[in-house]
Amino acid sequence: MMKHFLLPLVFLTNSVAAHAQQDDSLLIRRLADTVLTHGGAYENLRVLTKQIGARLAGSPATYKAEKWGAEALRKAGADTVYFQDVIVPHWVRGGKDEVRILSNRRDYVAPLATLALGNSNGSGEKGVTAPVIEVKDFDDLEAKKDQLKGKIVFYNYPFNPRFVETFKAYSDAVRYRGSGPSRAAKYGAVGVVIRSMSHGTNNFPHTGALHYNDSFPKIPALALGLEDADRLSARIKNDPSLKLFLRTWGKMLPDTLAHNVIGEIRGSEFPDQYITVGGHLDSWDVNEGANDDGTGIVQSIQVLEAFKKLGLHPKHTIRIVLYANEENATNGGREYAKQAKLKGEKHVFALESDAGGFTPRGFSLEVTPAQRAKVASWIPLLQPYGVYTVAAEGAGEDVGYLRPAIGTPVGELEPDSQRYFDLHHAPNDVLENVNKREMELGAIEMSALIYLVDKYGL
Amino acid sequence: MMKHFLLPLVFLTNSVAAHAQQDDSLLIRRLADTVLTHGGAYENLRVLTKQIGARLAGSPATYKAEKWGAEALRKAGADTVYFQDVIVPHWVRGGKDEVRILSNRRDYVAPLATLALGNSNGSGEKGVTAPVIEVKDFDDLEAKKDQLKGKIVFYNYPFNPRFVETFKAYSDAVRYRGSGPSRAAKYGAVGVVIRSMSHGTNNFPHTGALHYNDSFPKIPALALGLEDADRLSARIKNDPSLKLFLRTWGKMLPDTLAHNVIGEIRGSEFPDQYITVGGHLDSWDVNEGANDDGTGIVQSIQVLEAFKKLGLHPKHTIRIVLYANEENATNGGREYAKQAKLKGEKHVFALESDAGGFTPRGFSLEVTPAQRAKVASWIPLLQPYGVYTVAAEGAGEDVGYLRPAIGTPVGELEPDSQRYFDLHHAPNDVLENVNKREMELGAIEMSALIYLVDKYGL
Repeated sequence: MMKHFLLPLVFLTNSVAAHAQQDDSLLIRRLADTVLTHGGAYENLRVLTKQIGARLAGSPATYKAEKWGAEALRKAGADTVYFQDVIVPHWVRGGKDEVRILSNRRDYVAPLATLALGNSNGSGEKGVTAPVIEVKDFDDLEAKKDQLKGKIVFYNYPFNPRFVETFKAYSDAVRYRGSGPSRAAKYGAVGVVIRSMSHGTNNFPHTGALHYNDSFPKIPALALGLEDADRLSARIKNDPSLKLFLRTWGKMLPDTLAHNVIGEIRGSEFPDQYITVGGHLDSWDVNEGANDDGTGIVQSIQVLEAFKKLGLHPKHTIRIVLYANEENATNGGREYAKQAKLKGEKHVFALESDAGGFTPRGFSLEVTPAQRAKVASWIPLLQPYGVYTVAAEGAGEDVGYLRPAIGTPVGELEPDSQRYFDLHHAPNDVLENVNKREMELGAIEMSALIYLVDKYGL
Repeated sequence: MMKHFLLPLVFLTNSVAAHAQQDDSLLIRRLADTVLTHGGAYENLRVLTKQIGARLAGSPATYKAEKWGAEALRKAGADTVYFQDVIVPHWVRGGKDEVRILSNRRDYVAPLATLALGNSNGSGEKGVTAPVIEVKDFDDLEAKKDQLKGKIVFYNYPFNPRFVETFKAYSDAVRYRGSGPSRAAKYGAVGVVIRSMSHGTNNFPHTGALHYNDSFPKIPALALGLEDADRLSARIKNDPSLKLFLRTWGKMLPDTLAHNVIGEIRGSEFPDQYITVGGHLDSWDVNEGANDDGTGIVQSIQVLEAFKKLGLHPKHTIRIVLYANEENATNGGREYAKQAKLKGEKHVFALESDAGGFTPRGFSLEVTPAQRAKVASWIPLLQPYGVYTVAAEGAGEDVGYLRPAIGTPVGELEPDSQRYFDLHHAPNDVLENVNKREMELGAIEMSALIYLVDKYGL
């Protein structure tokens, strides 16, 4: 933490550096004006969300999105636009997901708000009907392992509200979605429902990927809206006759071909050295993928557009990468890193935006301490638009592959995280839940950071 | 700016101070846990917005809100709860506001999204029909002053998107709402429509107070949704036959009696020295007053509740003040300051929350440089919950009166401002547009600041 306070001081005692910082401040103000007054990001987002919409890897909309992305990069002023082949999984939901409470009691119970988990197998027409057993967590599951045979397991693990950064609550809870189904199947469970990965004040169900363990039956698994999870939990406590009926239709089709869409501005001094900026083009099938990750896509394109509009000629080649597949396999980033390594490319820095289009607060980084100190020295330049910290360790899923592959310093825009899990992987991740200006401030910060890394190196 | 970087360094070289800071950090973490895990703020907000709803000063809902506020303060643990008389204006909208485009062209034009400005006089049943003249700003108005007689003036002054802090765009534009109507009436205009005070991506009209100049006719005045303002502007340019029909029903009834609702925890050492925390209980008549200022109200009550739940005994008397009237006359804060002066009360500090329930970023202050430096030294304690700056000059409308009256240091929570003018004074300022956790983080910051001011003075 101290670094943030220390470095600008050191910096400003150097008058040459102070002058440079003033010039940079003016240039970044011009980038900001460009984005805020006539940037194309919001209109791009409108088209991506409203005209293309949901675009799960392998779905027909994937290919519309790729075509749109290439065109948007060209319009933004890319020198070169090309596709990079990526083999992606092709999961389909296949039908309407259902969870119903069955009970000897004669009071009516509405179907629960639910979505099958991504990559899950369908129950088929007949569905699954079984008694339900609620578990608090994996310890509780293990304690009850002898009672699970033939049952539906209900993981009711809540987000911990004490984490100020909501991604920590997600990291803490998401294992119940990822490995919960197979861990229950191991003990003979025939289905799983989970409390959605959210702390929202609504009842939207939140889908997301599970990972079956091939050693156990691949049982149906669904997420419940939070209000319905609470209702189910209350009901289980005083209705011994309660059973659940689940029906899902999910299916994994053969892998298919999709593409990372890449647009470049060629570097004036080091054309063979790359700075990458990107987000992922795919989304879940149940929403418009507005914050996840439409905003990352249009912010990345905005970086290129803003450079072009100001006539900036970067020294390194700036590559905007719209990754093909993050949601259910992260094959987009994996392939990009693999190709970079195969070709022996030199990557100076790679930045991602995949945490929602919310007001910016920081950048998370996976870099050396010296590199972090250098980025921290730029905070006075970034703070007018919202970024005041680069203390967090971490980077986006997609750029994360570059670091182990070829040692690239990587980072991610860190927007305010309070609203993300209200809509993450849920039907309400739509354009109306993006604030134009918050998203634009994020694009400004990304443009500023790329400008500084290009100018001063890392 | 430098202050923020400098002070924590100085602070931490002092090991006694560092120990104190560690204790404070733990105490503030306990305040945060209380608010995030079982704080009453959001449930209070639900009742205020959904069961009481709109509560313009003088309306019947005002008195329901006062009763609710007193009860909420008691439930939160106030030692004493009482009412302070405040004479408030009593404006009523009186009916449905209308703006229609009349044209010789036969294409159908829907009525425009509109709301009469607060405090404005109605046109009456007959309405006003007249040609419309668009002006960019007051200079443009003056240039066209000879053409305004018998016309409706359309002030189409947009928010300047270059301001990162949106309140600056509001300050820049709001004079067209406040004094625009009388300045047009001076030259014989018979009505005014204005572009709403917003940069939102929707078409909601935004009401808000105007101030008639008694020297000129009090003509009807309305705000238009932004999309309709753009449509009207486009149409004016190529339809010379265009007229507008306006109809409004506004009326100022005699002033009436309302109340500042006050709850206290009595100070253990200095019971006659006060620290005030508050927001305003009134709202406009067209929405639930969720962010303006329901969140300020429930955050202020949350401060008291959190202190009580942790068994903290403040040295000074903490006063939670729910001000009676901010929207159309600011009589609540005015009366509170007047009474404080009359009684010779000593006020240590007064804090307000009236900028929306959005994620906190800073506190604005009207204090001496030494006091600002002291608050800045606490930033390391506040930053984990979002506040990283106290550089801004300013305070809330209501507490603002205490400084000229009795010299009190005053301040306001400064949440992220990007979303505020999407819903300010518009029908969409409803509970659904408040994020529970963002609002709670604001309440944590307010609790922390009050705790520190009580402990260390200012």
